[in-house]
Amino acid sequence: SRTHSRAAAARLDLSGIYPPIATPFTAGEEVDHRKLEENLHKYAQMPFKGLVVQGSNGEYPYLTEEEQVEVVRAVRRALPPGKLLMAGSGCESTRATVQLTEKMAAAGADAVLVLTPCFYKGRMDGCALVQHYTKVADCSPVPVVLYNVPANTGLDLPLEAVVHLSQHPNIVGCKDSGGDITRIGLIVHKTQTQDFQVLAGSAGFLMAAYCVGAVGGVCALANVLGRELCELQRLCWLGRWEEARVLQQRLIEPNAAVTRKLGVPALKQAMEWFGFHGGACRSPLQPLTAAETEQLRREFASNGWL
Amino acid sequence: SRTHSRAAAARLDLSGIYPPIATPFTAGEEVDHRKLEENLHKYAQMPFKGLVVQGSNGEYPYLTEEEQVEVVRAVRRALPPGKLLMAGSGCESTRATVQLTEKMAAAGADAVLVLTPCFYKGRMDGCALVQHYTKVADCSPVPVVLYNVPANTGLDLPLEAVVHLSQHPNIVGCKDSGGDITRIGLIVHKTQTQDFQVLAGSAGFLMAAYCVGAVGGVCALANVLGRELCELQRLCWLGRWEEARVLQQRLIEPNAAVTRKLGVPALKQAMEWFGFHGGACRSPLQPLTAAETEQLRREFASNGWL
Amino acid sequence: SRTHSRAAAARLDLSGIYPPIATPFTAGEEVDHRKLEENLHKYAQMPFKGLVVQGSNGEYPYLTEEEQVEVVRAVRRALPPGKLLMAGSGCESTRATVQLTEKMAAAGADAVLVLTPCFYKGRMDGCALVQHYTKVADCSPVPVVLYNVPANTGLDLPLEAVVHLSQHPNIVGCKDSGGDITRIGLIVHKTQTQDFQVLAGSAGFLMAAYCVGAVGGVCALANVLGRELCELQRLCWLGRWEEARVLQQRLIEPNAAVTRKLGVPALKQAMEWFGFHGGACRSPLQPLTAAETEQLRREFASNGWL
Amino acid sequence: SRTHSRAAAARLDLSGIYPPIATPFTAGEEVDHRKLEENLHKYAQMPFKGLVVQGSNGEYPYLTEEEQVEVVRAVRRALPPGKLLMAGSGCESTRATVQLTEKMAAAGADAVLVLTPCFYKGRMDGCALVQHYTKVADCSPVPVVLYNVPANTGLDLPLEAVVHLSQHPNIVGCKDSGGDITRIGLIVHKTQTQDFQVLAGSAGFLMAAYCVGAVGGVCALANVLGRELCELQRLCWLGRWEEARVLQQRLIEPNAAVTRKLGVPALKQAMEWFGFHGGACRSPLQPLTAAETEQLRREFASNGWL
Repeated sequence: SRTHSRAAAARLDLSGIYPPIATPFTAGEEVDHRKLEENLHKYAQMPFKGLVVQGSNGEYPYLTEEEQVEVVRAVRRALPPGKLLMAGSGCESTRATVQLTEKMAAAGADAVLVLTPCFYKGRMDGCALVQHYTKVADCSPVPVVLYNVPANTGLDLPLEAVVHLSQHPNIVGCKDSGGDITRIGLIVHKTQTQDFQVLAGSAGFLMAAYCVGAVGGVCALANVLGRELCELQRLCWLGRWEEARVLQQRLIEPNAAVTRKLGVPALKQAMEWFGFHGGACRSPLQPLTAAETEQLRREFASNGWL
Repeated sequence: SRTHSRAAAARLDLSGIYPPIATPFTAGEEVDHRKLEENLHKYAQMPFKGLVVQGSNGEYPYLTEEEQVEVVRAVRRALPPGKLLMAGSGCESTRATVQLTEKMAAAGADAVLVLTPCFYKGRMDGCALVQHYTKVADCSPVPVVLYNVPANTGLDLPLEAVVHLSQHPNIVGCKDSGGDITRIGLIVHKTQTQDFQVLAGSAGFLMAAYCVGAVGGVCALANVLGRELCELQRLCWLGRWEEARVLQQRLIEPNAAVTRKLGVPALKQAMEWFGFHGGACRSPLQPLTAAETEQLRREFASNGWL
Repeated sequence: SRTHSRAAAARLDLSGIYPPIATPFTAGEEVDHRKLEENLHKYAQMPFKGLVVQGSNGEYPYLTEEEQVEVVRAVRRALPPGKLLMAGSGCESTRATVQLTEKMAAAGADAVLVLTPCFYKGRMDGCALVQHYTKVADCSPVPVVLYNVPANTGLDLPLEAVVHLSQHPNIVGCKDSGGDITRIGLIVHKTQTQDFQVLAGSAGFLMAAYCVGAVGGVCALANVLGRELCELQRLCWLGRWEEARVLQQRLIEPNAAVTRKLGVPALKQAMEWFGFHGGACRSPLQPLTAAETEQLRREFASNGWL
Repeated sequence: SRTHSRAAAARLDLSGIYPPIATPFTAGEEVDHRKLEENLHKYAQMPFKGLVVQGSNGEYPYLTEEEQVEVVRAVRRALPPGKLLMAGSGCESTRATVQLTEKMAAAGADAVLVLTPCFYKGRMDGCALVQHYTKVADCSPVPVVLYNVPANTGLDLPLEAVVHLSQHPNIVGCKDSGGDITRIGLIVHKTQTQDFQVLAGSAGFLMAAYCVGAVGGVCALANVLGRELCELQRLCWLGRWEEARVLQQRLIEPNAAVTRKLGVPALKQAMEWFGFHGGACRSPLQPLTAAETEQLRREFASNGWL
């Protein structure tokens, strides 16, 4: 099965746009599977490469493991053929990550997205992280994608560790949400002999990431403006940079609003405005205040989206 | 039961020294209950106020919930009458924290120590954290202690939130590991009408914390030099500050070594030198390198402890 | 003269409270020497150990070198016998620091307070800073006090560098404004054979600093509540810690307001309320907004000072 | 003269590559004008848009004002017609910045590059910085370029302040060294009606900056690999992105080595290898250690430059 996995890894083309899907809840904070399916039905008609399930925007730290796996199963059932399902499976301990990875694969994930463990930041040096990811990739039935999101974890996966891990046959790429375009360019450069694929972790620097060699993006904003992000990708792929720039620039402020500035509650509010089910977050995430909602609306409206 | 809990909270005196106990593992990374019991037997003979179980030094993020609760049960069985058992029960979501709090109480915890949720740092403002802790304290069968450890969480529980929460009848104190002595003094000052108890979260500033009004400490170093920390407390309580200072100063470097500098693997290594079972950590925590072990030894030896 | 300086250094007792004096300006932003003298006349009647001139609160980066030296001369003339004049003389380059140090000594400084150079932060490691301070101390006609203020410089003078420099015969102490009480305790511990004197750089942790072995404080708040800070020192020296704590606690919020929270404009505003000349700052420092002035007033009033 | 300046500002085209020139010193740490002229003679033969004098790489905080102005005069004399001379003139106070700006213009600067004042970080909000830059631009005989370098200043010029200032007729652009490509794209977007020109502050993200709308770069690495950076610019301007990417990628590591990682001493060492005069730095900047020199060599050699 390792051989099998390696062949699969070699084949797996990650290039394209992925929304890291939000998890709708009922008023009682239970996962709302009906609303989830309605969202999935709409996403199925967009030119996404696939979906990311149990990323940060899915409030995965607030779901039980059972809920996490059940959502992956539901997405698998709803996903049209040919679309990729990438599932988050990163836990703090290596053993828990291995186990959740196996469950995600069994539930239908085509690949897993593995967040850096971060609680003991001071000890999570390159050596510890290489051992962690190597063990996970050794055991995983599906290809592994590294996941670096320093704003949430307070930790930057060292570039040398990424380069080292890119040689593992079952590690096919990374999602980088830090927004350091120099780092993204250097990862592309130092892994160019490895067929290693870099995904931008945010829509704010998507065009620049394509420019320096990324192959796609996992973008919260794709939950809201999915077609527009796919169009941005198309323009970049065609080398129509002037048109791409105009579109990219109009996406920066809405993207910042639903990520860095106002977070998941804003993403879910914006989804409602654009025809999707967002709804409330689980506690302790609070709904937006009236002033924040107004700010959110302005960021979309002043760029011509509302 | 709320009434019962309030009365209990009113009675619960937290003052004193607590080791946040380490979790020994077997070579196969399973919880080693035999070694744990031997450590507990030794700790039972020290003048601790009680024990903290499932704090950061217990590698709780690496344990399953079942393991976490089972360790609490084991500690309860081993703990002499009159000693407090404070159990960590903080999770990212409010609902999970409520549930784990109930399990910890059922397993024998006298109080729970609730870490700040931190994954969505940008949204964890005072309002969100007040709502979180209020809900947890409303539901908890045992008194709640707030737990602030910015080095791990990347988040500082706002002082205004602490002051607000100090009015809740079932919130009896806080453990603060940030080391900002001005903040500790101000918490004492602003909660003085509430019978709110502040515990220092590290041995490095224990004497200074007593000086500005803290009532005790939850100190990793107490796993190693427990009697010495109890003696430091005794000197502070007796107002013998000159003697206290000499002892405090000799503890700063060993403490930094087993916490900020070298972390849990160093704590466990030092435990071995002083007659306790430390052993290895769970992955991805790595054992100390030879150079780090040497550095650790120097920090203890140069202060006269080895 | 080196021999002379060493003898002087050996004799120089820094223990006590110092206001780092503010610089009053006229409406046209010129140094207002008349108002300065009136402030100095009032300070002369307080039990200060001395005055710090050209510290951060004096807006020294906004003064020309000529203005800096002229203010030192004016303070020298006004200072009663037996009071120390400590003058800031830190510049970015070593050569400029040496030259300004000489000018300050010639203008009447009893000691110089030398800020860490910080523009090229990435290269200001322990080695560079030891060389810098050694050269300055070698050349200085008066004793040198190290000055660490990470909030302004973005740089923490490494503890090992402090310990190394404490052996220099012309370096007699340090002012530490970082507020890390563990670090202050450790500096005291590791320099105890050197007769090295540590001054707390802020009133917020003054009592705790005395507790762990500091000998005094250079405190912005002493421009406003000078007698109260001298009283706090007296209580600490007499071992009357309970009374000291009550006073210390009432000083934390006013101190934070005139330093970390609202800065020099707030210090100068508060000086006006307490009978001193503060006045405006030089541009680009802006006056407080109405809301900030109100906040400032509350911080003093709620602690019983207004 | 304001009218004159506005017309000049409207005319001034900043687009292109600028080395922020290093300042060679003699063994005695004096400015070495002979070596400086030899460097300038070589730079005159490269397709630079102009030179930046008294930027961070020129060790300007270590020069006296007289030295700073004298170097500008020397550069003016040596600069071929048609090349721009942009001179650093930022000081901490507004009044000193105005005065130095006037001196720089009198010494031959075509524009001034004005660093954010940063000592009182906590008070340098958008309002204070807008007032500072407005006053400087009102008074300046030559166009003003904003200069944001958070790695040195610990301060990020707020985006809203940049947008506001872009409307001033005598503020023609900004140099941004923070490397946040999303921010650069947004500045271009929000100032597009103002003919405001953005310069990348480092070679590491030069191609990405062109991609999102920057017009040029002020790059330390241009002191060493000037022709290559001009070639990268040419490829970007021609839309030959694939070739540009290959060249950009080979420049990232050498650039990081002479800036973020090893700083000005590394820049000066690399200049020696490539036929320019670098030499030593002024104290307290230390020369590279042998290990650092070796590391520096590797960063150039592994990318095919040595």
